[in-house]
Amino acid sequence: MISEQTLQTRPNLYMFLPVLHVAWSDAILTPTEIERIKQLINDQDWLDEVDKELIKEYLDPAHPPSPSEVKRWLKEIRSLSETTPRDLKHRLVDMSLMLAKEHGAHSDPATYEKAKKALIEIEDALGVLSLESDRFVWGTSSQTDSQKPIRASSFDVAGMTALLNGDHADIINRVKTVLQDPKFDYYSDQTLEGYREKVLEWCQYLADQGFGSMGFPKALGGGEDMARYFTIMETLSYHDLSMVIKFGVQFGLFGMSVYFLGTEKHHKKYLKAAGSLELPGCFAMTETGHGSNVRDIETTATYHSGSRTFKVHTPNPLARKDYIGNAARHGQMATVFAKLIIDDVDYGVNAFLVPIRDQSGSTLPGVRIEDCGKKMGLNGVDNGRIWFDQVEIPYDNMLDQYASVSDQGEFESPIASDSRRFFTMLGTLVGGRIGIPRSGLSATKSGLAIAIKYGHERRQFGPENGEEIPILNYRTHQRRLMPLLANAYALHFTLQYLTDRFLHRSEEDMREIEALAAGLKSWATWNTTHTLQICREACGGKGFLHENRIGALKNDTEIYTTFEGDNTVLMQLVAKSRLTEFKQEFHDMNFFGMVNYIANQAKTVITEMNPIAVRNTDESHLTDPDFHLSAFEYRERSILTSAAKRLKHYLDSGMDSFEAFNQCQYHLFNVGMAHTERIVLEQFQKQVAQTEDPALQTVLKRLCDLFALSQLEQHKGWYLEQDYMAGGKTKAIRRMVNDLCLKVRMDAVPLVDAFDIPEKLLSAPIAAGIMD
Amino acid sequence: MISEQTLQTRPNLYMFLPVLHVAWSDAILTPTEIERIKQLINDQDWLDEVDKELIKEYLDPAHPPSPSEVKRWLKEIRSLSETTPRDLKHRLVDMSLMLAKEHGAHSDPATYEKAKKALIEIEDALGVLSLESDRFVWGTSSQTDSQKPIRASSFDVAGMTALLNGDHADIINRVKTVLQDPKFDYYSDQTLEGYREKVLEWCQYLADQGFGSMGFPKALGGGEDMARYFTIMETLSYHDLSMVIKFGVQFGLFGMSVYFLGTEKHHKKYLKAAGSLELPGCFAMTETGHGSNVRDIETTATYHSGSRTFKVHTPNPLARKDYIGNAARHGQMATVFAKLIIDDVDYGVNAFLVPIRDQSGSTLPGVRIEDCGKKMGLNGVDNGRIWFDQVEIPYDNMLDQYASVSDQGEFESPIASDSRRFFTMLGTLVGGRIGIPRSGLSATKSGLAIAIKYGHERRQFGPENGEEIPILNYRTHQRRLMPLLANAYALHFTLQYLTDRFLHRSEEDMREIEALAAGLKSWATWNTTHTLQICREACGGKGFLHENRIGALKNDTEIYTTFEGDNTVLMQLVAKSRLTEFKQEFHDMNFFGMVNYIANQAKTVITEMNPIAVRNTDESHLTDPDFHLSAFEYRERSILTSAAKRLKHYLDSGMDSFEAFNQCQYHLFNVGMAHTERIVLEQFQKQVAQTEDPALQTVLKRLCDLFALSQLEQHKGWYLEQDYMAGGKTKAIRRMVNDLCLKVRMDAVPLVDAFDIPEKLLSAPIAAGIMD
Repeated sequence: MISEQTLQTRPNLYMFLPVLHVAWSDAILTPTEIERIKQLINDQDWLDEVDKELIKEYLDPAHPPSPSEVKRWLKEIRSLSETTPRDLKHRLVDMSLMLAKEHGAHSDPATYEKAKKALIEIEDALGVLSLESDRFVWGTSSQTDSQKPIRASSFDVAGMTALLNGDHADIINRVKTVLQDPKFDYYSDQTLEGYREKVLEWCQYLADQGFGSMGFPKALGGGEDMARYFTIMETLSYHDLSMVIKFGVQFGLFGMSVYFLGTEKHHKKYLKAAGSLELPGCFAMTETGHGSNVRDIETTATYHSGSRTFKVHTPNPLARKDYIGNAARHGQMATVFAKLIIDDVDYGVNAFLVPIRDQSGSTLPGVRIEDCGKKMGLNGVDNGRIWFDQVEIPYDNMLDQYASVSDQGEFESPIASDSRRFFTMLGTLVGGRIGIPRSGLSATKSGLAIAIKYGHERRQFGPENGEEIPILNYRTHQRRLMPLLANAYALHFTLQYLTDRFLHRSEEDMREIEALAAGLKSWATWNTTHTLQICREACGGKGFLHENRIGALKNDTEIYTTFEGDNTVLMQLVAKSRLTEFKQEFHDMNFFGMVNYIANQAKTVITEMNPIAVRNTDESHLTDPDFHLSAFEYRERSILTSAAKRLKHYLDSGMDSFEAFNQCQYHLFNVGMAHTERIVLEQFQKQVAQTEDPALQTVLKRLCDLFALSQLEQHKGWYLEQDYMAGGKTKAIRRMVNDLCLKVRMDAVPLVDAFDIPEKLLSAPIAAGIMD
Repeated sequence: MISEQTLQTRPNLYMFLPVLHVAWSDAILTPTEIERIKQLINDQDWLDEVDKELIKEYLDPAHPPSPSEVKRWLKEIRSLSETTPRDLKHRLVDMSLMLAKEHGAHSDPATYEKAKKALIEIEDALGVLSLESDRFVWGTSSQTDSQKPIRASSFDVAGMTALLNGDHADIINRVKTVLQDPKFDYYSDQTLEGYREKVLEWCQYLADQGFGSMGFPKALGGGEDMARYFTIMETLSYHDLSMVIKFGVQFGLFGMSVYFLGTEKHHKKYLKAAGSLELPGCFAMTETGHGSNVRDIETTATYHSGSRTFKVHTPNPLARKDYIGNAARHGQMATVFAKLIIDDVDYGVNAFLVPIRDQSGSTLPGVRIEDCGKKMGLNGVDNGRIWFDQVEIPYDNMLDQYASVSDQGEFESPIASDSRRFFTMLGTLVGGRIGIPRSGLSATKSGLAIAIKYGHERRQFGPENGEEIPILNYRTHQRRLMPLLANAYALHFTLQYLTDRFLHRSEEDMREIEALAAGLKSWATWNTTHTLQICREACGGKGFLHENRIGALKNDTEIYTTFEGDNTVLMQLVAKSRLTEFKQEFHDMNFFGMVNYIANQAKTVITEMNPIAVRNTDESHLTDPDFHLSAFEYRERSILTSAAKRLKHYLDSGMDSFEAFNQCQYHLFNVGMAHTERIVLEQFQKQVAQTEDPALQTVLKRLCDLFALSQLEQHKGWYLEQDYMAGGKTKAIRRMVNDLCLKVRMDAVPLVDAFDIPEKLLSAPIAAGIMD
């Protein structure tokens, strides 16, 4: 044991205290390393044999020092004059030499140099991890980059909120005010029944505010403002999502089906009651047997000319209506989609209003309803299954905007094709594919606000003996969350664009808007699922607690990727729509001609692919919006062309077209994704360009760059395969993404503050800085 | 209107019925296309003016035909002799000509040829989507590839089950039998309280079977078989996961902490009661303030030499114990981790047994417990928070395997470093990082069994008028699920390997095994989260219903990525361990030398990177296990080298080591991932090589290829950046993955059947083919 007395008499030993301390304090040295150090010590002629033996004794793995000894060494080392600047004590060598000097060892220059050389060799032998070892000795008292306080927001938060709200600040603030009323306190009971009643009650309050009928005609008590209706849906989504979906079922699906598929007689009779929630209704399209394949549903509505009635019937168990919101408990009427049969001829799917319960809540004769029971989320919505047994409804209950039965009992419609008529009807209801991604985006924003505020406050680890640092200062944490923050901003502006296109649509636009809605609904809701998953993980155990709301946000939005159209199926619709547009553009060529034309056109962008561009890693190039958009467009065009070629190849080889589409399905899916991503980038870039406030523009530009580059990084395999980028360039993009994550992190809290989600709605204690 | 009479007198018109039908049946023609067809018709000199006008009239968008007319045309077309082979009726041209022929039009060869040419031109003008149009007319009566019935299993399912079970079939079957007892019927009530009591009751039944004490010494009533203990955990995980976690808390965390950290006196006094659940216990390590950074927990245990007692104390609100399983309701004792203080000196974190409740369930004096309340999942586990207010415990309650206080009141330990001692203690508890991924894997298998069986039965869409096809026959569906099935098999064998390594460990192995467990725990639990997400989406609305269990599996395993060590943090531990091993291999070089050495060594694999290998797309090469393993190893080594270089660069430039590690964090994370993936591939390949039954070997080889190639596809960006593969090769890999997905799909149901999950436990109606 190196007693204090021994040390006093043998000052050379001081020099080895740092090494000995490191050797034992975390046991990071392997036996071989210890042997190597022993050898080095043996080689030192300036040490006497007693010194050598004492040191080597302390390196013997079979006889480790006691914990108390190790602690005493540390005290000795730390006693080094505190006036010595920190950066002179970085290496073990420096500490050793200073210790030795303070205690009067090897004052002659020759010995000093020998000792220094030996210590450097020992330090080298310790290898890379030893460079961490000074932390065991000193901790790090100077602030590191990771510990630096975050500077204040680079932009005006209120200004950003105003920009996000656009000209809807009035209704947004009104909805937020209403939601902060004590009546809207979150429901904490555990029963399905209680939750469902609470949600109904909330919806009634919302209807009383005129929110439900916002989209209906003024003459019928509505607000005649679809734009504000969508904004209401979006803003409500900062609160309980069961409430939002019940609201959407009642006023969106049921109300809008009456509005858009019905005619004046239906509007007058039902719209007011639908908008006030006096008449709770369902939207009964989906059947168990035909979830996604809605055109092939089997429920029938058979016309009886004598009584001028329809009989609505469920012909087999799989033809029951399924997952129908409002059905299990509250619905009194349902818009039922059924094949219209007249004189044994099937006229395709049409819509009918079918009463299912009386006002007392009793199911009507011929109607059987079963509760879908507990679900993964949205348990405040009473989903149910409905069977009809020859339920008779009057002639006037057919929603006859697009088809009707004449006085002579003949089917009449301005649209000849059953299929086209049905998809035209669905087209009028495309609003659901706008409301859902906007609702999902609000949930995403809530999740990001919770995870980012928590990450900013929560501290874990740090330099040894130094202060712990906020977890959001960790690179992996930034890498996980910052691109998702960029996505949320990107989608905000793009979903505004989608809404505008829908609100100002012409008939010619409809096919494009339907594809746009299908693509964005899918992309945005997958983004919601993914973002909330990462937010949960980023909040660790805290994120698992009910009180912090991420679980509810996750589970309630989980089904967003399925309802209003399964995302995978929708992406293929987008692809088919792209193929059609493709065809329309080149109507006077045959298909093969088109493909060649496109292929040649693609070659003209070869200018983008010259050796310089492919390798260009200048920062100005990598953050150039034109580079981003060109790259997205190139990908979109190339995948579309190659999918079309492949399809053509299969068809030409005599493959059945259904089979050919299935063979190309994965390819077609990517066509839809690439198209949607290009639209999102384009819209975000437009927003950046038209933002006037320079500080807002700068931060939005940064988010837009992060969005673009993190997408390019995700698809780098594709770009490299195509020789659109060289390896050096994709690596530079990765570094740029890292860099942008760090920069965006500096503004991360103000960026989620700009969402302006009331703290009461956000509700999560961890988002309010409550850690204990 | 083309009446039947008109048709009779003008047989040429028959020829246009297919085109007219297509033009209107789905309204797929644009106005420009219709104009083009009208022009073509005008150009036909073999048609008279009346014919031309009649046809063009029917192409007038302003005057569409009635739905009834369109249906009548279809009837005419379909009346084509059924004896005509299907493949002669593929194109519209063929149908047209046959119709015309049957009705006596243009019997002279010259007119026939003219008509044929015209019809071909019209068909070309219809473009690619028109090739789908024959479906509107005929449907597809012949079976397409997608409709082909799935052939019987290519292998013996029972043989595969036997292979998966290894020599644990006895205990696996016993556990399954026990779980099928009516006592283990799933709990369907909604209250937290009821669920927690049910889970406790289940755990008691399991204890009664001797399952809980399987790992404890025989002398104390145990089974002295840790291998079987892990298998029990895994098999229980086909049932309710709250039960599994409560089981793990009691017998794994609490019991094993007494066993491994305590000494004989503790074993004799507590192990039997722990194993029988007579003494419900907690494992109180995590604190609110220090979730991942467990070494820095703040609870203190201060030694009082006079009374020879310890006082356990929570010094501040953030030092409360948090998320402690068994704490909120049932625990009577807790293994508490606290810093041992003797005479004001801190001897680091040690473990103490602290009674927290009496047998009647009342909290003991000085102990305050709060319920963590509702969580996202695992609600059958009573997690709680514990505060200690100077709680006195006797001397014997210190778990003294690694440290103790001497009679003289001095701290004694064979391990000098506080930090190293703590991590040694943790090392003995690494079993938790084996049990959790194995439990997660069982949940993954359940999810896959549900989604794959459902996908095999559920039919949606299909050729027009043809039968709908199973959704698992769709390429995107296969693409989503089949690689995950391969992952599950890969992890099965790898987690067996991890368990074996742990069970047969030597002290020198420990660091490696800890890194192995950290990496596999993270990789496997992320795989669980991801797989169950895809399974939910693959089951659509059905997957969202509680009854189909995917929601419970998802939510209960959600926290697996966080507890037993946050995955992101653990992956960095793996990386640090790799850096250390790296250093050990080259102990006699300094760091810079090592880097050069590795870099040179990497160059020797340049043989793999010759132009031929980089471009080789032969099937035999792409499915060569050596190619797979070389590619994984190359990636692992390259990332490690570049991470080490980067770290060295930062450190050399004077950066603080904490900061340097943070700068490289994302890189280090990838080091951990690449290392873990290589291990998984290696183990799966070993299993394939040693499988004797040729049919089993074939199907396992296919799964192993799919695992390897889908990983390579995921990382293709990296391989392309490195010029390890050329674009043509990565594209060939994508095609091969598609192809393997199709092949694996053929055996998909038998492959999940081989998991042998009892139907009662799987429970989901959709997995039992119950669709209505």
